[in-house]
Amino acid sequence: MHFEAAVGHRVSDLSALWQTPSSRAAEPTVQAGLDTQAMGMAPVPGELVTPTLPEGDWPLGRALAQLQGVYILAENAKGLVIVDMHAAHERIVYERLKAQWAAHTPDGTNGDVKDDSASTLPYLRSQPLLIPATFAATPLEVATTEAHATALQVLGLDITPFSGKTLAVRAVPTHLIQGDAVELARSVLAELSQHEANTVIQRAHSELLGTMACHGAVRANRRLTLEEMNALLRQMETTERSDQCNHGRPTWRQISMRELDTLFMRGR
Amino acid sequence: MHFEAAVGHRVSDLSALWQTPSSRAAEPTVQAGLDTQAMGMAPVPGELVTPTLPEGDWPLGRALAQLQGVYILAENAKGLVIVDMHAAHERIVYERLKAQWAAHTPDGTNGDVKDDSASTLPYLRSQPLLIPATFAATPLEVATTEAHATALQVLGLDITPFSGKTLAVRAVPTHLIQGDAVELARSVLAELSQHEANTVIQRAHSELLGTMACHGAVRANRRLTLEEMNALLRQMETTERSDQCNHGRPTWRQISMRELDTLFMRGR
Repeated sequence: MHFEAAVGHRVSDLSALWQTPSSRAAEPTVQAGLDTQAMGMAPVPGELVTPTLPEGDWPLGRALAQLQGVYILAENAKGLVIVDMHAAHERIVYERLKAQWAAHTPDGTNGDVKDDSASTLPYLRSQPLLIPATFAATPLEVATTEAHATALQVLGLDITPFSGKTLAVRAVPTHLIQGDAVELARSVLAELSQHEANTVIQRAHSELLGTMACHGAVRANRRLTLEEMNALLRQMETTERSDQCNHGRPTWRQISMRELDTLFMRGR
Repeated sequence: MHFEAAVGHRVSDLSALWQTPSSRAAEPTVQAGLDTQAMGMAPVPGELVTPTLPEGDWPLGRALAQLQGVYILAENAKGLVIVDMHAAHERIVYERLKAQWAAHTPDGTNGDVKDDSASTLPYLRSQPLLIPATFAATPLEVATTEAHATALQVLGLDITPFSGKTLAVRAVPTHLIQGDAVELARSVLAELSQHEANTVIQRAHSELLGTMACHGAVRANRRLTLEEMNALLRQMETTERSDQCNHGRPTWRQISMRELDTLFMRGR
């Protein structure tokens, strides 16, 4: 994340805090001490970077707790950090899927794959599920699975018929392992059933990867350990554009001690 | 605490949340489900009441963490609760000191005590310190300690000369055991030195107890366990007027999930 560009989320007055964040262009202020690149934390999409900063200097702070299964509360040098868990994870996952995808389409514009392609390498790194996730499928879903085997493979999904009316998800993209495998499979099958496989793959870069990220990211009410929360915060710090979700909403908010003190009418 | 009267701190619109709370009289709205008396949690000043409600129904919620040694973060059914640790504890302690004091002055207007009084019973229940707290005292402080022995006893303080220039605090009021014993002793000695003992004791009900509560309450940067934080929240729930500190500032704030969702532009 470029913290110097995320200043719209680090406001110093309360009214602005609760308003729609201004566009980045309108707030070019550089915030000293938060340039992650200068601190040797250049974004490395697609890879988990071990933090090199001491705990006290983590821009997004030390995770304290989960709130109602939706937000992560953290403490940094400035005060309280609130993170929208799902939105942040969705963005991280999306950026990683895009990076893996881009490695297979060097020109960045074409992901052309034939159903009879000799390439069996998935574009998205795949990880088998410990226990396959089965679901009652519609006839269309079963037919789509059979017709678009290569496309599924390219997308890092292993979906096979389990019985006549049941499909089994046996592997999902590594970065989506924390999400709901069935939701993910159904959303991809829905896309595949409506389009030619080629079209879907070509569109993947812009849209399908976003859909997959949404269904593959951690959902609300998933209980995270402090270690998992901290890992997410560190991933946010090293992921491009992680300060906004895929739909442009903020993924985290800073409430400074000064703002809290004002809220409590404390003169310090 | 009367939660139905604390509605000024449970605002439903953001702008009001960050403004100075309106006076209680201006907001007579009764908030359903938060009447602590109706829930069998009638305030019992001076006593720690074991909560009778299940955890999920605690009005001030379940403690999550401390923030920068100043605030307690808690989660209740509505969302995030932020508590000013010192201000809240100061108020609880103050109400308890007042209750103990009132038991010795049934008419509520007179705490007249002669320095040569036969009564040796402290008005404020006293507790010996495991290790006496010594401090380098001024000659005036030493003289005041000797001249006002009875007044100190009434106030639940045991302060004795340790050497010519050192005083030792050997006991403090039970409710102030978590505070700074030396700060407490010096603030009381400063009052005693400026007034006749009788005057101080008579004023105690309105002012001195407040001073003592301030210096006897937990200070910022004191690390609390989750158990201690939860105990403080439960004490707030059963203490009259604990929603405001002795100076009229709020001791806690509610930030609802709806408000957080608005902050994150989440439509739910």
